[in-house]
Amino acid sequence: MQLLLDREQELRERYGISFRITGIASRRLGWIADHTGLDPQACLSGSISPSPGLTNVRTWLSAARADVLFEATSLNVENGQPAIDHIRAPLQHGAHAITANKGPIVHAYRDLRDLAVARGKRFLFESTVMDGVPIFSFFDQLPAIHLRGFHGILNSTTNVILTEMENGLNFEESIKKAQALGIAETDPTHDIDGYDAAVKTAALITVLMDVPIRLDEIPREGIRTLTAEAVRAAKKEARPYKLICRAKKTEHGITATVRPEQIPQTDPMSQITGTSSYIYFETDIFPGLALTEENPGLYATAYGMLADFVRAVTP
Amino acid sequence: MQLLLDREQELRERYGISFRITGIASRRLGWIADHTGLDPQACLSGSISPSPGLTNVRTWLSAARADVLFEATSLNVENGQPAIDHIRAPLQHGAHAITANKGPIVHAYRDLRDLAVARGKRFLFESTVMDGVPIFSFFDQLPAIHLRGFHGILNSTTNVILTEMENGLNFEESIKKAQALGIAETDPTHDIDGYDAAVKTAALITVLMDVPIRLDEIPREGIRTLTAEAVRAAKKEARPYKLICRAKKTEHGITATVRPEQIPQTDPMSQITGTSSYIYFETDIFPGLALTEENPGLYATAYGMLADFVRAVTP
Repeated sequence: MQLLLDREQELRERYGISFRITGIASRRLGWIADHTGLDPQACLSGSISPSPGLTNVRTWLSAARADVLFEATSLNVENGQPAIDHIRAPLQHGAHAITANKGPIVHAYRDLRDLAVARGKRFLFESTVMDGVPIFSFFDQLPAIHLRGFHGILNSTTNVILTEMENGLNFEESIKKAQALGIAETDPTHDIDGYDAAVKTAALITVLMDVPIRLDEIPREGIRTLTAEAVRAAKKEARPYKLICRAKKTEHGITATVRPEQIPQTDPMSQITGTSSYIYFETDIFPGLALTEENPGLYATAYGMLADFVRAVTP
Repeated sequence: MQLLLDREQELRERYGISFRITGIASRRLGWIADHTGLDPQACLSGSISPSPGLTNVRTWLSAARADVLFEATSLNVENGQPAIDHIRAPLQHGAHAITANKGPIVHAYRDLRDLAVARGKRFLFESTVMDGVPIFSFFDQLPAIHLRGFHGILNSTTNVILTEMENGLNFEESIKKAQALGIAETDPTHDIDGYDAAVKTAALITVLMDVPIRLDEIPREGIRTLTAEAVRAAKKEARPYKLICRAKKTEHGITATVRPEQIPQTDPMSQITGTSSYIYFETDIFPGLALTEENPGLYATAYGMLADFVRAVTP
């Protein structure tokens, strides 16, 4: 929201977009709505009280008279809830839905996409993979192309941990470092055990290859079993460990994996360290088309939602 | 055109686009138009006669009743002609203009852009830089972002020549190899002396930074002065020569260069060999955002025009 406010003038002058914040909801703040507009600073600081009578996303959306909803709950690997409901509700209400949560893509992409089309609204999720780098929009700009496979490094937490282990820290210290950097969550299980990377892989397969895939169809191995010694030895022999996501179209569908791999020096992935990420697409027209995000800034993920907002409300 | 015909069914089924070829013109074939449709195979094989009474692009466009024009003349570094006229004419006629020629962008971008907007038509040129990789469209998907600079390897001919020199050929042999690969033109001066790279650099600055720049404002040095010995020695010390394009926003405007540079092994550009290309963007949100095109296929440039066609005719 800070970024949205920072760019308010530019959005107005350059894109003709003006907005007001008419609702905010979180576990901590409760349901808050005022269709005449809330004070953004109060929203940011959290010094704002719940609105009486609001008990769920539907009453809240109505009170806010929302045109666009930003959904940013955390990942539920099991079933994508409550984010799926948080996206379905605004689409049914007649608002665009923008999410930074990849759960709904894996668990309900076609439903939500079709609902958005039926209501003439947008369901956008550019922040879900590689922060706000417009991967999905990039493919919108590649009409009639055939994606045959991809591989990449898509989880920052494990990449930071591996880099820190290479630099001499042990596993636990590396996790603490990633947490201190604001990259890893308090419970980094989703990252370390490869769930986050697997969900991103599934999201890319689902959207870009138009093949729904369940998480249990992606063999998944995290970095928990790698010792600092093994990581440093691999680095020393110039074949560093990275947590690699892979997907490939085959005659029988899609095969995908998430697991630590030793990457030879000749592969650009060997140089992706810290919070950087990378994806390499194999297509019929471009045998290799890669995107690298180096050291994303503080607002990289928020930017993806801002860009989705511009996409949603401009013709 | 081969690619367009190959994808005819997919364009119809997936994008609702049907088309016929109603005109073709080249130095060799002359002006040919038939608004009821020409035989594509005859156009491809060149076994087709000039149409009587057509003497210029305007009479030809009228006879063809063109909705979209594909412009593919070769680069005129001096003034961008006749491509500029070939783009202005369809826009004035009421047709979209798609070009693979970067001359018009450097010499007439704002004019052509404004003319297209005024006529409600599209002026598209995605094939001009990095084959058909959608660089310009990628930035359309990065609203409210601020591009601070970029660097990259954008000329395939010189990159192939440098790679071949590293592999043991001399300068002349490397040129012949690049020509045999269909990469270098019969007269490879534009590539070798850095004009092609400089024009691409100027095109990116003009469009993505919205700052018009003249070619003589970009200090330009080609690869002609590099000996095979120097190229091999540089490769041996793991700091290979590449022809690098650079641009940077400064307080006083833009500074840009095109020249051979020795690239350290830690820079991904050191691994861009042969026909591959690379660009690294510095933006306020993403400090480093890079695109790599590895070994583009035969249709990579044609694909850029196909994609522009889809962009132009779909809502």
